[in-house]
Amino acid sequence: MNNNKKGNYQKTFKKPIRKIEVNERLIKDISGSKERISIVAKVNRVIQTGGPTVFVVTDGTGSFSLKGFIGPGERAYPEIEEGSIIKSTFDVGEFQGEIEGEIKVIHEVSDEQKENFAKQIEFIERKRAEVVAPNFLVKSKILDKLKDSFVKAATEIRLAVIQDRPIIVRHHNDADGYSSGFSLERAILPLIIKQHSSEKAAWEFFQRAPCQAPFYEIDDSIRDTANSLRNVAKFSNKMPLIIIADNGSSPEDVMAIKQGKIHGADFIVVDHHGFDEDVIAKEVKVHINPFLVGEDGSHYSAGMLCSELARFINPEVKNITQIPAMSGYADRIELGNPNTMEDYLQIAKGEGYTRELLSDIALVIDYVSAKVRFMEVREYIEVLFGEPRDKQKELVALMAPHIRNLDKKGLAIGKSNAKHEKIGKAILQTIDIGETFPGFGFFPKPGRAVGLIHDALQEDEGVKSLVTAGIMNTAITLRATDEANFSVHELLVYLNKKLPNAFVNGGGHKNAGSINFLPYKKDEVVKLLKEFVKSR
Amino acid sequence: MNNNKKGNYQKTFKKPIRKIEVNERLIKDISGSKERISIVAKVNRVIQTGGPTVFVVTDGTGSFSLKGFIGPGERAYPEIEEGSIIKSTFDVGEFQGEIEGEIKVIHEVSDEQKENFAKQIEFIERKRAEVVAPNFLVKSKILDKLKDSFVKAATEIRLAVIQDRPIIVRHHNDADGYSSGFSLERAILPLIIKQHSSEKAAWEFFQRAPCQAPFYEIDDSIRDTANSLRNVAKFSNKMPLIIIADNGSSPEDVMAIKQGKIHGADFIVVDHHGFDEDVIAKEVKVHINPFLVGEDGSHYSAGMLCSELARFINPEVKNITQIPAMSGYADRIELGNPNTMEDYLQIAKGEGYTRELLSDIALVIDYVSAKVRFMEVREYIEVLFGEPRDKQKELVALMAPHIRNLDKKGLAIGKSNAKHEKIGKAILQTIDIGETFPGFGFFPKPGRAVGLIHDALQEDEGVKSLVTAGIMNTAITLRATDEANFSVHELLVYLNKKLPNAFVNGGGHKNAGSINFLPYKKDEVVKLLKEFVKSR
Amino acid sequence: MNNNKKGNYQKTFKKPIRKIEVNERLIKDISGSKERISIVAKVNRVIQTGGPTVFVVTDGTGSFSLKGFIGPGERAYPEIEEGSIIKSTFDVGEFQGEIEGEIKVIHEVSDEQKENFAKQIEFIERKRAEVVAPNFLVKSKILDKLKDSFVKAATEIRLAVIQDRPIIVRHHNDADGYSSGFSLERAILPLIIKQHSSEKAAWEFFQRAPCQAPFYEIDDSIRDTANSLRNVAKFSNKMPLIIIADNGSSPEDVMAIKQGKIHGADFIVVDHHGFDEDVIAKEVKVHINPFLVGEDGSHYSAGMLCSELARFINPEVKNITQIPAMSGYADRIELGNPNTMEDYLQIAKGEGYTRELLSDIALVIDYVSAKVRFMEVREYIEVLFGEPRDKQKELVALMAPHIRNLDKKGLAIGKSNAKHEKIGKAILQTIDIGETFPGFGFFPKPGRAVGLIHDALQEDEGVKSLVTAGIMNTAITLRATDEANFSVHELLVYLNKKLPNAFVNGGGHKNAGSINFLPYKKDEVVKLLKEFVKSR
Repeated sequence: MNNNKKGNYQKTFKKPIRKIEVNERLIKDISGSKERISIVAKVNRVIQTGGPTVFVVTDGTGSFSLKGFIGPGERAYPEIEEGSIIKSTFDVGEFQGEIEGEIKVIHEVSDEQKENFAKQIEFIERKRAEVVAPNFLVKSKILDKLKDSFVKAATEIRLAVIQDRPIIVRHHNDADGYSSGFSLERAILPLIIKQHSSEKAAWEFFQRAPCQAPFYEIDDSIRDTANSLRNVAKFSNKMPLIIIADNGSSPEDVMAIKQGKIHGADFIVVDHHGFDEDVIAKEVKVHINPFLVGEDGSHYSAGMLCSELARFINPEVKNITQIPAMSGYADRIELGNPNTMEDYLQIAKGEGYTRELLSDIALVIDYVSAKVRFMEVREYIEVLFGEPRDKQKELVALMAPHIRNLDKKGLAIGKSNAKHEKIGKAILQTIDIGETFPGFGFFPKPGRAVGLIHDALQEDEGVKSLVTAGIMNTAITLRATDEANFSVHELLVYLNKKLPNAFVNGGGHKNAGSINFLPYKKDEVVKLLKEFVKSR
Repeated sequence: MNNNKKGNYQKTFKKPIRKIEVNERLIKDISGSKERISIVAKVNRVIQTGGPTVFVVTDGTGSFSLKGFIGPGERAYPEIEEGSIIKSTFDVGEFQGEIEGEIKVIHEVSDEQKENFAKQIEFIERKRAEVVAPNFLVKSKILDKLKDSFVKAATEIRLAVIQDRPIIVRHHNDADGYSSGFSLERAILPLIIKQHSSEKAAWEFFQRAPCQAPFYEIDDSIRDTANSLRNVAKFSNKMPLIIIADNGSSPEDVMAIKQGKIHGADFIVVDHHGFDEDVIAKEVKVHINPFLVGEDGSHYSAGMLCSELARFINPEVKNITQIPAMSGYADRIELGNPNTMEDYLQIAKGEGYTRELLSDIALVIDYVSAKVRFMEVREYIEVLFGEPRDKQKELVALMAPHIRNLDKKGLAIGKSNAKHEKIGKAILQTIDIGETFPGFGFFPKPGRAVGLIHDALQEDEGVKSLVTAGIMNTAITLRATDEANFSVHELLVYLNKKLPNAFVNGGGHKNAGSINFLPYKKDEVVKLLKEFVKSR
Repeated sequence: MNNNKKGNYQKTFKKPIRKIEVNERLIKDISGSKERISIVAKVNRVIQTGGPTVFVVTDGTGSFSLKGFIGPGERAYPEIEEGSIIKSTFDVGEFQGEIEGEIKVIHEVSDEQKENFAKQIEFIERKRAEVVAPNFLVKSKILDKLKDSFVKAATEIRLAVIQDRPIIVRHHNDADGYSSGFSLERAILPLIIKQHSSEKAAWEFFQRAPCQAPFYEIDDSIRDTANSLRNVAKFSNKMPLIIIADNGSSPEDVMAIKQGKIHGADFIVVDHHGFDEDVIAKEVKVHINPFLVGEDGSHYSAGMLCSELARFINPEVKNITQIPAMSGYADRIELGNPNTMEDYLQIAKGEGYTRELLSDIALVIDYVSAKVRFMEVREYIEVLFGEPRDKQKELVALMAPHIRNLDKKGLAIGKSNAKHEKIGKAILQTIDIGETFPGFGFFPKPGRAVGLIHDALQEDEGVKSLVTAGIMNTAITLRATDEANFSVHELLVYLNKKLPNAFVNGGGHKNAGSINFLPYKKDEVVKLLKEFVKSR
């Protein structure tokens, strides 16, 4: 039987890195039978109970608890710390149903053995983390170009799980962001539960939460870092791997990422928003964004990217193939050129989701995300994403008509105070948000309301060349048609040139975005907006 | 001894529903003695520990834990799930002081037995939940008419406790709302603690929290649902029974109630606010409201209704007979016609509470409720309600004079900028809230301040026919005297007719309420308010 | 061996207070050996488990758990309650590695014995709490005058730890406040961990959190009380000792302190802000403030006072000697006259902290405090204060330049809309905050921005006699140079005389502070501010 165990040991390594002793085991090969054996392993956590000291160790093949007892509550073997590479001989026993080892001998290994062991553990962990790249759900040039990044990101995520490292997913606070976060969650949670043989680990080693701003800001970073440091102190956790999804590619994210890294966090970014220059890649383990491979990310939702990534992370991931199409509707990805959206829609239809249902789900997620704000509400989100599907359908059937009524009222309110002005070749539609809408807590929020009003004028009156501006005290939300030849980006450049001390900034896509300025410059900004529209 | 046990079994059912075997027991009859017995029971929770799998089962007479062990952390008997009806033979033993069963045999029963058992368990549970209706604390036509609803609501609440179902009480965020929630809490908590033989169960199976809005809104519902789903996932809890108190009768509550029901929650509503049409009854288990039996709910506080209901739920409920009078003062229920308020006051006096003390307690609860906002702070609330009474008196003696000073200052501020105008037969008193009061966090809040100013003008100058309007950007708070012949409700109808696209809504009582509108319609609304007052 | 134990017993008391029986022990002398012994002790907590009832008792020399078992989950010896003085004979045993006693006999002692025991326990506890006053870090007349108060405060804090009483530190929400709270935390936590032989006790018996307002307001007090009452109910905790640091000396704190005391909390205040009259001392255990001994608190930061106090509480406190200088920079304590600031700076330099680094740390703490708001984030704060120091330096090197850039932008914005007016001998610089700054969430906040603009006009244009006013709707933030002969305090008196129903209040130092008023009085207040400046 010892031979057989040794056989396993050797099968694990193509080339055995070091000599294995007769009674030495890999952790994965320890059974419940009572015997005295030894292992070489790294100490991951040291937990001082009221009774013995518990050393949770790993050799890359699994985790195991070794108990040392000197006196009640007294720290046994104080020379053995987190990170130590130890050799221990112990008796296998059982305590409250868990297999554990009662330490007979424990000591740090020699420097040479340490080095060998480091190679061995890295070899084992990297091997377990290896990704077999699946075929993408759809044929796509963009995805093909991103494939290597997908493999790299998935490998890092799998490695984090194997190394008992907590994972935090932070996503944009809209339906596409939730789609991104949820599909990653579906892939990662089963791996974590399996790694720790524990359902509870799904809460201890994973968190998903929306960012409040449209980027990962310093506030998020400080909160994540502070909570993680607390878990390090209280539970000997490691610092996390943080995945930023549907956010994270912009210069506004840099400071927050750097802040987290100082404390030992690492980052992966999966985004589809554009940027002028990639200032993120050099700060993170992997940066995935279609713009990085010369493609336009606006044809792709982040939910599409993350659903594909989920399949790299966990080939057995379930209930996500309808998400790409849904997130596509959420982010108004257009059909055709490329055909990706149609292809994803076909897959979703195969899962029993119609176009209408997918749109309605996206609508409900947008609404709920405004209500739950920063709360994780994991199980509620599961229902929204179809676990179980009959409840998803019931919930959407109840809430979508309600939300459409709210939208209808918001649209009527907006129309009642919208002003139209022919400027050059375009119509400029303006709404004073502050004097029109009831304020905080009102749904639809200003950005959404402006979108509805913008669409309505096109549909109702056939206006083709249209710019719609929702004007607030320190910001303007903008929507434009292609015919208006608008550009949020160029407007920003124009305003900063003409009115430097209004401190204008902002962002978004060419035809949809928002700008911020100082309150006392509002009138001048609005005047210049009109001149800009005229000049197009 | 077996005979004796069987005797118990038969005494429990008037007509034994099915044949009982020799070694079969009811859970309530299992003693600590070591023996091999069997039960038929429903599986309520399945808990996978690091060691054995624990099945918490019930047969309607009590709960019991059965342990199955295959390997450490391995799910034993995976065919047995939550909701299964099982027959099990086991050895009675003890683990960490709790009596448990070590499973020898466990299997689902036949379909016929299942049906019999369902009848049996329902019979037992319903029997245990039965309510013996007490006499009401006071003689009252309204209460008599509501008696059947009280019995029904109390039975449902008792049944929820017996079925290990969590209970959430959500109440209006003022002194009457707290009175309602607290009296229910006093009745329900002891039943829960007894059911689970555990003080901790008071936190696991009960929650009381105020609503922020004057109705149970979708935000509350999503939050309650999300937390409950989490408890289902983490602790195998059931979905809750939610009692809405001093809120819940209006159309604004419907969507939130429906949302909760989709996820498996059930609802009971106890309210005294009026409505045009009962849209609630068909959505909830029981709807209690004086208006439902043709009586005017404004003569009754919700705290009165809930204190009476508390005595139906738990005949041994303590420390609540002073609450009806206190909540009556809180909601300014008038003395006389009917005599209910006087009768309750007499009872409170018998408990050592003077009129002044009751008013002061209501004042302090109103103030504290503004400070604690959505927090439960169960033990602090206990002190406010007289547990213990010496601390209640000390606290009220400290804080009531402080709060009266804040009110005095609020009144002086309001007076300093109030405007009076003779319109028709009435005086219209207006205060521009935004330019008068310091804003967020200021106590008294606008609604309270307007009430103080309204009362003061009557007292100081003997004005009889008075309407007071606290004007904000998107809302007006209104108070009127009977002599002014005012009606918030008719004002709403008037404004919506004259100014449909101001999107006016609101509510309240005839002489006290508030209306909301779009900010840019404020001047027109104020003008129409004056015309409305003139027309009365 | 019994003799030897008795010997210890007698050594503990100079004069033995009562006769000791042969098998009687002090708790500190109970070893793990199995024997039957007896103790006299006070019951601190009664914990009902699913198995036995656990009585946690103390005799002043330590804590010990006694177990009584009648039936699973049944309350043993219900006559023995929290606070009872008992004599118990028990068998010493071990459970899960903790030494415990299995009760053979337990009963309350006679009234005479009770009195003796009370004397004994007080004697032991007071003796253990005794403080050996260290030399102050710097020579200072002020500190010498405060020495007795330091001894008294430190003794009370040590006594709270010994009596298993939770400690809450509440501090001003800026860098000086954090310095105060942190230095106390560094002293107190190790004592708590030692007292309970448990790292977890650091979370169960200690909390540090900022106040949101510049005083300990009723909201803080209700929250602290409510949480403490919950811990009393759930964990049999005692009511806390609350230390208010860098806040607490003003009349605004009185009601909150009184509120806490009603529920059994006690208070210590360490502040350096001025006041007209000491209304605090009579409400608290100890009130420390330089103004109480006739000295000007503005030469001293609260961080200096608390760092010195920390050394009285725990002579072995670590990593705090650089804090006084850092907190001095944070609160802009001037060098020279007295030399305290220089002396502290020398000490910090000895710890490897340059002036620049100390300023930068203060800057980062100010910034982070605005981000974490009311969260405790204990471990993150540790990094900011140099645990470990390499991470502190890395973090400050990353964030200080970022924050200076934010300040630079804030300054430019402020300058772009600042107005200057020659009034009498002074320049009055005004900024309309609401129309100039982007609003909520913007850093620097109004007060800080006004400070930057005030400093800049002096540096850029050499203005000597300057008053800067940041004007908001209901408040004005003020800064003045010595040459302007200004006084926030006298302005308040002036405004209240000239404009009584503007309800002006406020506070601060002579040359820096803020005033509040009713929004509709803003124009009149600004007019009077100008007249006031003119009159100086």
